[in-house]
Amino acid sequence: MFNKVDAEVIDSLKNISGSDNVFFDNENLDLYSRDYTENLSYYPEVIVKPADAREISEILILANKKSIPVVPRGGGTGLSGGALPLFGGICLSMERFRKIIEIDAENCQATAEPGVITQVFQEKCEEYGLYYPPDPSSKGSSFLGGNLAECAGGPRAVKYGVTKDYVLGLEAVLPTGEIINTGAKVLKNVSGYNLTQLLIGSEGTLGIITKIYFKLISLPKFRKVILVAFNSIEDSAKTVSKIFQSGITPSALELMEKSAIKAAENQLGKKFPNSEAEAQLLIEVDGNYEDTLDRDIERIAETVTECGAYDIIFAEDNQKMNEIWALRRCIGEAVKSISEYKEEDTVVPRAKIPELINGVKSISNKYGITTICYGHAGDGNVHVNILKDKMEEKEWAENLDTAIREIFKLTVSLGGTISGEHGIGYSQKTYLPIAIGETELTLMKNIKKTIDPNNIMNPGKIFAD
Amino acid sequence: MFNKVDAEVIDSLKNISGSDNVFFDNENLDLYSRDYTENLSYYPEVIVKPADAREISEILILANKKSIPVVPRGGGTGLSGGALPLFGGICLSMERFRKIIEIDAENCQATAEPGVITQVFQEKCEEYGLYYPPDPSSKGSSFLGGNLAECAGGPRAVKYGVTKDYVLGLEAVLPTGEIINTGAKVLKNVSGYNLTQLLIGSEGTLGIITKIYFKLISLPKFRKVILVAFNSIEDSAKTVSKIFQSGITPSALELMEKSAIKAAENQLGKKFPNSEAEAQLLIEVDGNYEDTLDRDIERIAETVTECGAYDIIFAEDNQKMNEIWALRRCIGEAVKSISEYKEEDTVVPRAKIPELINGVKSISNKYGITTICYGHAGDGNVHVNILKDKMEEKEWAENLDTAIREIFKLTVSLGGTISGEHGIGYSQKTYLPIAIGETELTLMKNIKKTIDPNNIMNPGKIFAD
Repeated sequence: MFNKVDAEVIDSLKNISGSDNVFFDNENLDLYSRDYTENLSYYPEVIVKPADAREISEILILANKKSIPVVPRGGGTGLSGGALPLFGGICLSMERFRKIIEIDAENCQATAEPGVITQVFQEKCEEYGLYYPPDPSSKGSSFLGGNLAECAGGPRAVKYGVTKDYVLGLEAVLPTGEIINTGAKVLKNVSGYNLTQLLIGSEGTLGIITKIYFKLISLPKFRKVILVAFNSIEDSAKTVSKIFQSGITPSALELMEKSAIKAAENQLGKKFPNSEAEAQLLIEVDGNYEDTLDRDIERIAETVTECGAYDIIFAEDNQKMNEIWALRRCIGEAVKSISEYKEEDTVVPRAKIPELINGVKSISNKYGITTICYGHAGDGNVHVNILKDKMEEKEWAENLDTAIREIFKLTVSLGGTISGEHGIGYSQKTYLPIAIGETELTLMKNIKKTIDPNNIMNPGKIFAD
Repeated sequence: MFNKVDAEVIDSLKNISGSDNVFFDNENLDLYSRDYTENLSYYPEVIVKPADAREISEILILANKKSIPVVPRGGGTGLSGGALPLFGGICLSMERFRKIIEIDAENCQATAEPGVITQVFQEKCEEYGLYYPPDPSSKGSSFLGGNLAECAGGPRAVKYGVTKDYVLGLEAVLPTGEIINTGAKVLKNVSGYNLTQLLIGSEGTLGIITKIYFKLISLPKFRKVILVAFNSIEDSAKTVSKIFQSGITPSALELMEKSAIKAAENQLGKKFPNSEAEAQLLIEVDGNYEDTLDRDIERIAETVTECGAYDIIFAEDNQKMNEIWALRRCIGEAVKSISEYKEEDTVVPRAKIPELINGVKSISNKYGITTICYGHAGDGNVHVNILKDKMEEKEWAENLDTAIREIFKLTVSLGGTISGEHGIGYSQKTYLPIAIGETELTLMKNIKKTIDPNNIMNPGKIFAD
């Protein structure tokens, strides 16, 4: 189906991007064979690190001519295997696209290249009193381009939206080599089809993003954080929609079940108060007036108490606030270090979280598997980590897929879908038909075919066939 | 290129939707030949008012078989001729899709049919303490479906975003008759390509929306409004970005130049204070705490004064607030009643508004035409109304197109684009290549062709050829 990368292709790549930017030694091939998705590994045949859109255009024209797959790669922090070179071919690393081109404080906008690290970009914006809210756990190493490809979210999405909500336009290279510009530096735009949003979340299957025009907002001046302990997961989950119904939109509303907190304690090597609670909610509010936030927190405290919370820890200062966030932020790593695992990224209407978690626990019991749930409860996005733990290999192999299918069917039956912010990529593609009908999948595949007629652009992702 | 609607087609339509829902008398053909776009009129051959998605599917399958164009129509309030049946054919009126299916207060979501009037939907949401912010001038008669098709905005977009930001998913009928579902009832979703955002803003050229899943937010409890008078348009325009830079995001920030205010005075038959000001800004803030809004208004008052405002009118009560909004809201109609006109919907980064308006005025002077500027300055969206006034027919015909091209070239050179919220439709399609390159247009047309191979779905819109 695809051709192999031969000496001639390597020479052409060297001509395009320079010998210093083409790699095919074992160490590099190994390094670029993985992202953060479980223990998956697929080797590229060559890695190229282009400098600009023009070079990418030439590489894609070459790849089309030779029928060689091209897999774009950002920070390699993806959780659905989007950057895995399933069919070998060219790994196109965007690591040289690391310029923040402009912070336009007057217009609350910025222009950046896709290889900029999310946190670096965020901090640069903050220097200008501006805020770029998307805040994935991997922000210390993820690239902006990868965040766009997967439409990354994070805790602040509940108030501020996800990556797609901050992108006004793009420069991108189509799989056939044309360089396009989408959108404009404007907050509203109905001038032709929304190509920007077609590319965002398309997981590198429709083209390679080479420049991003961002919308920013004013940096809120104050934050307040509380950590609330519950005797039952269900009570904590029910609390979530009650808080919104009281008229308050927190800037983060995170749910952690006991086993997630315990894993975090192990990871950080310290004890947290209330770590025996069945579930805890981390609730943050932000804004420009401190006294208003105090009033919000007071109202939230009333709501959570009515819903059955037995203790509330108020973070009195920044240090305490950072400690609470560190607890939350380390859970992902902590849970994964326990055993072999598979992470799912379920999302439902937020009032359905109790049903989702109850259902996940029944399915876990039925198959004798361990699940740990945590995540962005404020927007209904619950990360379900399925752990192999002490289960026998054979049983694990037999039960895992069945259990995941049941969890996803439940998710969809609640009005939800199978990925909120991690994407489908490679690891979820066989489950996509649970959420998306055949007609819709055919439509998506037809769009893919129109834009990438030879299927060289990140093949084998999103669609199972 | 297309076939005519004959007796057989009429019979088929009657079989599908019932005789009571098929019209081809002169009065109806005349009524459905226009929308709100200038004085344009194109007659459909037949009007059909289907009841559900299944009927629409049958109509589209028929239209494909017979090569008959189908033009979907909402409230008929479009400003770019999107609902004009350029090639005759079938006008598919969505007026029977008027059910608000569900207001889900627990999840801050709603499900509605596309024929619901925007304001009716907004008011229903408010009964539940929920807010649907998109607020086009035409909200009293526009349909939700039309708002989606054109990605309508309005004054509140500056804080809350436009129509696309409130749509979680859709049911739609593809031009080839398949009924699809896009998105899910969730706030975050990376499960396949974003078909929802491909359909929104596609102006009825890619399918017919039959059901909409909305995201809502909590209704802010308080509003405050001020009206600020300036001695120069430039000062007023410069003030706009200064307000955002001070860290405040108003819920509306509207700019009106003197001639717009004068037109409004004529329309309403009353005088407003400061109507001799060269320009005025209507500034609104909203939120849950009244004292916070007072502080915001105080800071805004300081900023506008520093920027050269000479008077500020504070709306002390709801009646005063409504009066100020009535002034702003009637401008569209008022300006149009002066003479023959053409309305443009320019949008630029907000700090570029002074350059845009200065440029528009130079272009006006150069061609001896009258322009009146007003609109949503907070998001850089300035409606430029070009009036024929007393200009001779010949001169008007000669100069109008040239002047518009110059205005749009200026807009694009400032980082902007040619439509923020009205769409391209019919009346702007020859200008689209000023904003969108040939490669991007080809890509859009290829997507159109993939989804609508026989080009029956609202043909002649968006693309000039």
